[in-house]
Amino acid sequence: MDVSEFFLKLLIILLVAKLFAEVFAFLRLPSVLGEVIAGIIIGPSLFGVIVPDATLYLLAEIGILLLLFEVGLETDIGQMAKVGVQSSLVAITGVVVPGFLGYWISSSLLALPFVVSLFVGGTMVATSIGITVRVLVDLKKHQTKTAKVVLGAAVLDDIVGVVILAILYDFSVKGQVNLFNAAKVLGFITAFLVIAPVLAKLLMPVIARLSSASRTKGMIPTLIISLILSMAVISHKIGAPEILGSFAAGVALARRFFLPFGSAMDHYSHELAEKIEINMKPIINLFVPIFFVVVGASINLRVIDFTSATFWYMAGLLTIGAIISKMVSGTWAEGNFRTKLSTGIAMVPRGEVGLIFAEVGKKSGIFDDVIYAVIVFVVALTTLFAPLALRFAMRGEE
Amino acid sequence: MDVSEFFLKLLIILLVAKLFAEVFAFLRLPSVLGEVIAGIIIGPSLFGVIVPDATLYLLAEIGILLLLFEVGLETDIGQMAKVGVQSSLVAITGVVVPGFLGYWISSSLLALPFVVSLFVGGTMVATSIGITVRVLVDLKKHQTKTAKVVLGAAVLDDIVGVVILAILYDFSVKGQVNLFNAAKVLGFITAFLVIAPVLAKLLMPVIARLSSASRTKGMIPTLIISLILSMAVISHKIGAPEILGSFAAGVALARRFFLPFGSAMDHYSHELAEKIEINMKPIINLFVPIFFVVVGASINLRVIDFTSATFWYMAGLLTIGAIISKMVSGTWAEGNFRTKLSTGIAMVPRGEVGLIFAEVGKKSGIFDDVIYAVIVFVVALTTLFAPLALRFAMRGEE
Repeated sequence: MDVSEFFLKLLIILLVAKLFAEVFAFLRLPSVLGEVIAGIIIGPSLFGVIVPDATLYLLAEIGILLLLFEVGLETDIGQMAKVGVQSSLVAITGVVVPGFLGYWISSSLLALPFVVSLFVGGTMVATSIGITVRVLVDLKKHQTKTAKVVLGAAVLDDIVGVVILAILYDFSVKGQVNLFNAAKVLGFITAFLVIAPVLAKLLMPVIARLSSASRTKGMIPTLIISLILSMAVISHKIGAPEILGSFAAGVALARRFFLPFGSAMDHYSHELAEKIEINMKPIINLFVPIFFVVVGASINLRVIDFTSATFWYMAGLLTIGAIISKMVSGTWAEGNFRTKLSTGIAMVPRGEVGLIFAEVGKKSGIFDDVIYAVIVFVVALTTLFAPLALRFAMRGEE
Repeated sequence: MDVSEFFLKLLIILLVAKLFAEVFAFLRLPSVLGEVIAGIIIGPSLFGVIVPDATLYLLAEIGILLLLFEVGLETDIGQMAKVGVQSSLVAITGVVVPGFLGYWISSSLLALPFVVSLFVGGTMVATSIGITVRVLVDLKKHQTKTAKVVLGAAVLDDIVGVVILAILYDFSVKGQVNLFNAAKVLGFITAFLVIAPVLAKLLMPVIARLSSASRTKGMIPTLIISLILSMAVISHKIGAPEILGSFAAGVALARRFFLPFGSAMDHYSHELAEKIEINMKPIINLFVPIFFVVVGASINLRVIDFTSATFWYMAGLLTIGAIISKMVSGTWAEGNFRTKLSTGIAMVPRGEVGLIFAEVGKKSGIFDDVIYAVIVFVVALTTLFAPLALRFAMRGEE
């Protein structure tokens, strides 16, 4: 690709994303919604200026790694553990109900073949941790108890999501499922999420020493980005999504994450934590919007035949199913109706995870063009619905 | 490409570059040398872990844009203009002498065909503004008078370099040269370099207003990167290298760049300049080393047959010619012998510009494998020679 052409694309992405984010923020709506809509507008759905290619996907991936790192940084893992039971119940419900409802609508009401129905069910399971987390941050509600329940549930759903995708893919290609492998992966991921932050925390004094002894510029951003990348790579190696690695890196460097054994390194923490924040903020804020624009630009609404009655019938049923089935999970959240409602809505967006399911389904020949278009539409609607609805549901929540 | 594989590559680049940069800085050598050598080591020459692909080239290009932006930020354009005559004389000599000497060695001593000799001469003309500038920054000599002369000359050489490359390419492909076009491009570039900083400076109050009114995060890094990218794209459109655009953007935002007419916006400047510095530093320091590692990894020493006597004969003659011919240009620098020597050495590195010439020569069939290998070797030697030699030549210079 021509370098200058790429620079122009990047420029368009950055400026249009910022413009829409500002307008949405001005209207007191989550700016992430502006960024996704910006992506839909400049993407193949409308103007077709930005068609995500390999390089843009990679920059977008760096963006989502950084977002999860930032969320990790601000996460008090002790408080997350306290609401762990609620999170787990929300997550399990958020997997089981949408999965079965998606399968049932597809096989019974839409009379789709068995494997197709299974895959639709799988798609319904996905929760876009990226969209959910950004909405909470945009609304400045990411320190609320609801947010902690949702964050825990979204992390768990993300893990379950990749395992289900792997199982479904194996099943549709090889015709059999290796549940032992799936269990092994789940075990690895759990172990990783427990061990990784502790290991990363042990690196803190090393990072502090290196940054104060350094004779070159940029030691801190280089080391922190390296830490994030290495955790992402390890996370991928054991079969987990990369973003869990960067989340773990963030948790490790969080001011409120203390090692159970000794606090010998804790006197480094305060000054270093500040330096890390100052150095990482501009990088994070630059890259994160690229991810959401690319999510928007990955939704190609042109594949949809909006004049088809069949399309509307299928898309209508599945969208309603997709929204209601996830909202059911909110009933486990402790608190008043508003808390349950907010929790449920926060679990609704399928975002990039739903699009990955749709792509795998299409490429493996399981989804034909009509079903693919329906799924893309359902993913788009759930992704746009959640930020809007959450904006109103969470009003006044502490 | 697999996302995780790309993350791993990026991780290796960042860590190895930092390691070598630190070691070189510890040895009181320019850390840029460590980064280029890191690239040679992890690149195809030795370990072959990093083979630059399209995405890495793009990240590297962002790195060099940011470096030139940073240098522009710290450039006092008034002082550069004061040494303009010296810079021009150095630049002209640095084009004419190496060009003719390269041609003469090729055609007379090495008996190479006419077009090949012309292209070798063209390669000798290139000055790697990136390497030169980074060495001066590493040695903390970028505010010296010598640095100002060199910076001006390197910018001029870069402009002349692209024009020569275009002419040679036209000539070798079409068999004729359009000198009118070349002159037009030169005119455009000159106009751009005069007008662009003024236009960009006029945007300062807009940037200040937007950043203080913003309701989203990361307004400053987004706007500054957008400004750099748009100047780079415009620069490319008129036929100049992208880095001149980012340099112009830096000059415009420099604290010491005042508009000739009115200073209505100058009260914004101080606070904004500080914010820009705090926000851009981590991004710059993260990306710049990627460029130099990629330069190192673009040098594939494996194409060279080191047992060939012909190779050593050709490479030896051309390397000596390449170094001496550029050093001659230093005689125009006002000052003692040391100043002239430093100026001359600073013009020696061919770096990425020389590699571009070599690639174009190879792809168009003008360079066979032997000449290509010779040119790669000459580029590598001049690139490594300059930082080392400058370290000693500039000792004590103010």
